[in-house]
Amino acid sequence: MLEGYTVPLSPRGIANLATKPPWHYAGSVIGAEFWTDPAAAAATLPDGLTADPESNGHGIALFIDWQYTASRDEYLDPVRSLYHEFFVLMDARWQGTPVSWCPYIYVDNDHAMARGWIQGFPKKLGAVTQTRAFTVANAAAPLQGPGRKFAATASAAGYRLANTVITVQEPMPDTSALTARPTVNLRHFPRLAAGQQDDPAVHELVMAVFDDETIADAWAGTAELEFPQVPGEELHDLAPVRTGAGFRYELAYTVTDLRTLS
Amino acid sequence: MLEGYTVPLSPRGIANLATKPPWHYAGSVIGAEFWTDPAAAAATLPDGLTADPESNGHGIALFIDWQYTASRDEYLDPVRSLYHEFFVLMDARWQGTPVSWCPYIYVDNDHAMARGWIQGFPKKLGAVTQTRAFTVANAAAPLQGPGRKFAATASAAGYRLANTVITVQEPMPDTSALTARPTVNLRHFPRLAAGQQDDPAVHELVMAVFDDETIADAWAGTAELEFPQVPGEELHDLAPVRTGAGFRYELAYTVTDLRTLS
Amino acid sequence: MLEGYTVPLSPRGIANLATKPPWHYAGSVIGAEFWTDPAAAAATLPDGLTADPESNGHGIALFIDWQYTASRDEYLDPVRSLYHEFFVLMDARWQGTPVSWCPYIYVDNDHAMARGWIQGFPKKLGAVTQTRAFTVANAAAPLQGPGRKFAATASAAGYRLANTVITVQEPMPDTSALTARPTVNLRHFPRLAAGQQDDPAVHELVMAVFDDETIADAWAGTAELEFPQVPGEELHDLAPVRTGAGFRYELAYTVTDLRTLS
Amino acid sequence: MLEGYTVPLSPRGIANLATKPPWHYAGSVIGAEFWTDPAAAAATLPDGLTADPESNGHGIALFIDWQYTASRDEYLDPVRSLYHEFFVLMDARWQGTPVSWCPYIYVDNDHAMARGWIQGFPKKLGAVTQTRAFTVANAAAPLQGPGRKFAATASAAGYRLANTVITVQEPMPDTSALTARPTVNLRHFPRLAAGQQDDPAVHELVMAVFDDETIADAWAGTAELEFPQVPGEELHDLAPVRTGAGFRYELAYTVTDLRTLS
Repeated sequence: MLEGYTVPLSPRGIANLATKPPWHYAGSVIGAEFWTDPAAAAATLPDGLTADPESNGHGIALFIDWQYTASRDEYLDPVRSLYHEFFVLMDARWQGTPVSWCPYIYVDNDHAMARGWIQGFPKKLGAVTQTRAFTVANAAAPLQGPGRKFAATASAAGYRLANTVITVQEPMPDTSALTARPTVNLRHFPRLAAGQQDDPAVHELVMAVFDDETIADAWAGTAELEFPQVPGEELHDLAPVRTGAGFRYELAYTVTDLRTLS
Repeated sequence: MLEGYTVPLSPRGIANLATKPPWHYAGSVIGAEFWTDPAAAAATLPDGLTADPESNGHGIALFIDWQYTASRDEYLDPVRSLYHEFFVLMDARWQGTPVSWCPYIYVDNDHAMARGWIQGFPKKLGAVTQTRAFTVANAAAPLQGPGRKFAATASAAGYRLANTVITVQEPMPDTSALTARPTVNLRHFPRLAAGQQDDPAVHELVMAVFDDETIADAWAGTAELEFPQVPGEELHDLAPVRTGAGFRYELAYTVTDLRTLS
Repeated sequence: MLEGYTVPLSPRGIANLATKPPWHYAGSVIGAEFWTDPAAAAATLPDGLTADPESNGHGIALFIDWQYTASRDEYLDPVRSLYHEFFVLMDARWQGTPVSWCPYIYVDNDHAMARGWIQGFPKKLGAVTQTRAFTVANAAAPLQGPGRKFAATASAAGYRLANTVITVQEPMPDTSALTARPTVNLRHFPRLAAGQQDDPAVHELVMAVFDDETIADAWAGTAELEFPQVPGEELHDLAPVRTGAGFRYELAYTVTDLRTLS
Repeated sequence: MLEGYTVPLSPRGIANLATKPPWHYAGSVIGAEFWTDPAAAAATLPDGLTADPESNGHGIALFIDWQYTASRDEYLDPVRSLYHEFFVLMDARWQGTPVSWCPYIYVDNDHAMARGWIQGFPKKLGAVTQTRAFTVANAAAPLQGPGRKFAATASAAGYRLANTVITVQEPMPDTSALTARPTVNLRHFPRLAAGQQDDPAVHELVMAVFDDETIADAWAGTAELEFPQVPGEELHDLAPVRTGAGFRYELAYTVTDLRTLS
């Protein structure tokens, strides 16, 4: 009788990439709001989502240094539980509801990749890094404060995918806009048997459920953002034509469920 | 209309981790035959497979430097198409047929990980390295020949998982034993919705289909093999109690199909 | 006329691994005090240092997530300026003065490795990770506070070198003990010409000079620490026979100088 | 009494990054000949070298998958002894003699980086990959033969530094041109003491000595080569204005000495 939630299933249920939820997350976020070609944004949407008539082409690029734990003190196994992630969320509509859609996401950890696929996040491997804040005062350490700059970068296959620099200006008294749109993903797992390769085993639109979503230390300001052209990737088709706000905050939530839309 | 075979589905179908088959593979293999505790071997088997009454506990550890291509000259994108893999295959029976079962497999490439999951190989990320042969004569380069030694190693999460050293002694006139047992895998993809987490969306026993399987330059000899104990892994439960032959060969095949067993 | 401070010297002086000081550092530290076999500790000392008669065998293992900047806003190039480091400092004496000696140090960044060699830190590449603290409350995020646990690990060559778990208990009102001993290093750079390989070009004992050394948010508690045996390394010869305090703090300083002792 | 040749010096002399020579090397080479702006090439030369009046601006880009051993069977420790390297060699003159000068070189292994610094190769860390040849016939495996293509790439800091594709056309009956020019390097190791940072401890022009240099399986053809622009690097200042021959061969030599020029 094999144990576990994901592969590899195993006698003791320890080797699997992810145990069953609850999955707890805490992260440091650098975000940059941007607008891209509306046609390019709309082209990324799956069946079931439509372009948002009020904000099509609007999105946010997020770089997050995450720490994860389930129920076994995984946060004390930092090699497996810390990871760095970069993704974009594009405005869309599901049955009239404003939602966010994640076309591309990169992460440096196989456990996070496995959980992501199960949630419908289409994760690939990438290298993601962000400037950190410290409480000690030193030229190497930007304190959170007006005019302070923070950078973040993402690379995949030895190509630079994304660069951002944000300049924070003031604390955000109201962070509700940061989590206003639910995230819609596409769970997708193909068949390999000949004749069935166009008929995936799993292909379903889902809405993420984030329990106890908490934001702290949120500051807003301005952002620079670029998505250089990379062979074998399509992120640069969403290259910013202009940017909006830059953000920096801490984020926590727990995943125990997901809502199937279709 | 999104294009692609795996995630991420995308407007141009370029960003996905794997396009539809055919998937062509060529690799350099170092293999070490071993016997482990029969109860430990049997404990790794999924429903539908049974211990092989004639060889339960017998397996082979394989370290392969792979090169991959599909239909777009992927072998000219070596960052994405080369990878290094380590896995064990354990003897088992499926409805009386001798087969190989892959309980654990590690790879250093997300494209290979995605294809593996679709085939039912339960791939995790790892670092895998093997001694190479060269045609130039130098103390750094063991020529393929009697008494020559080759080593291979695998690590995951910063722990050493496996070490082997083989000593080749003579060419293998008949390599049919190397591919005699078909490989049986378990395709498995969980549900995340609350209440359905014990009811996976995909959970099916499959048999790999390797077209045009070719072996070249096969030499056999002896092997040393160890699976050190690693927190968070279960491979060491299959630690060798004795080893058999060591092998070194080149291997090629093409994947276009898979046979569903249940 | 080539520009730069370290290799590669180049026309524009941009490509070099390190520009001239000032070098500014800020870091998050997890530390574990330990005692090892006094003979093993003494055996690591270079000519010019002697065992500390009062505390021979006593040392501290430090895991630091660093951020670096020189004079070009390097902290906004996080791929090159962030790094993770693990090292041990052993008690010793230099001409009667209590000092710390760094026999082994591992880092994941070539810029840090180059600066380290120039300072006399004998850096090798390794993978180093530590549990992070966050301000948001979540099971994934240990808040700094009594009884909270933090882990840190180091690996090299695919082997686990060091594991620690500290449990913080209370803020440290006085952190002067953390920086009481100056660090003594050995700058060493060999010759390669035949007949001169035993006569290094640089071989000098030096004392590190840390300007504006600042510690913040220091908490102390207890520590567990292990140095597993690793082929090709000698750190495990300093394996702890017992541990003392565990620490967690932020550290900043600037390097502009170094004192040559011999 | 500390043992070893490079840092870290240690009680047993095992932990050091490199033991004393002999250093034996075997490698698979992909090379691309190119011409760049002569002024840019000349600008990379150190004092003591001058532009080659007959071929200034001419160079070769080399991508090598190396295997190393010293006297302890290091080739059986493949994690430490295998590595991947990319560098350019530019034509120059030393006292009238045609030589090659290496302005930039990237490698993925700290042992190779340490040996390189000692030889005067200004190594930085990078990720380097090349298409491999196999003896088995498969679409994934280009056999060495007329019209076959091989690619190689180098990246650093998450940016793509160099891409080449060569098309081999015929075996090279005479490979002497591949090794005709001796390689001249600059050994350089700075001082850190205030006031001495412009006065390096080591700064000497040297000529590499490669014993028993052997080339096998050499094929020549054509080459494509690009050096994309990368912040923090200067390689792209040598971007090809045209390319010449492409090469693929195996190379072996042993290092036991070096000739000091000044």
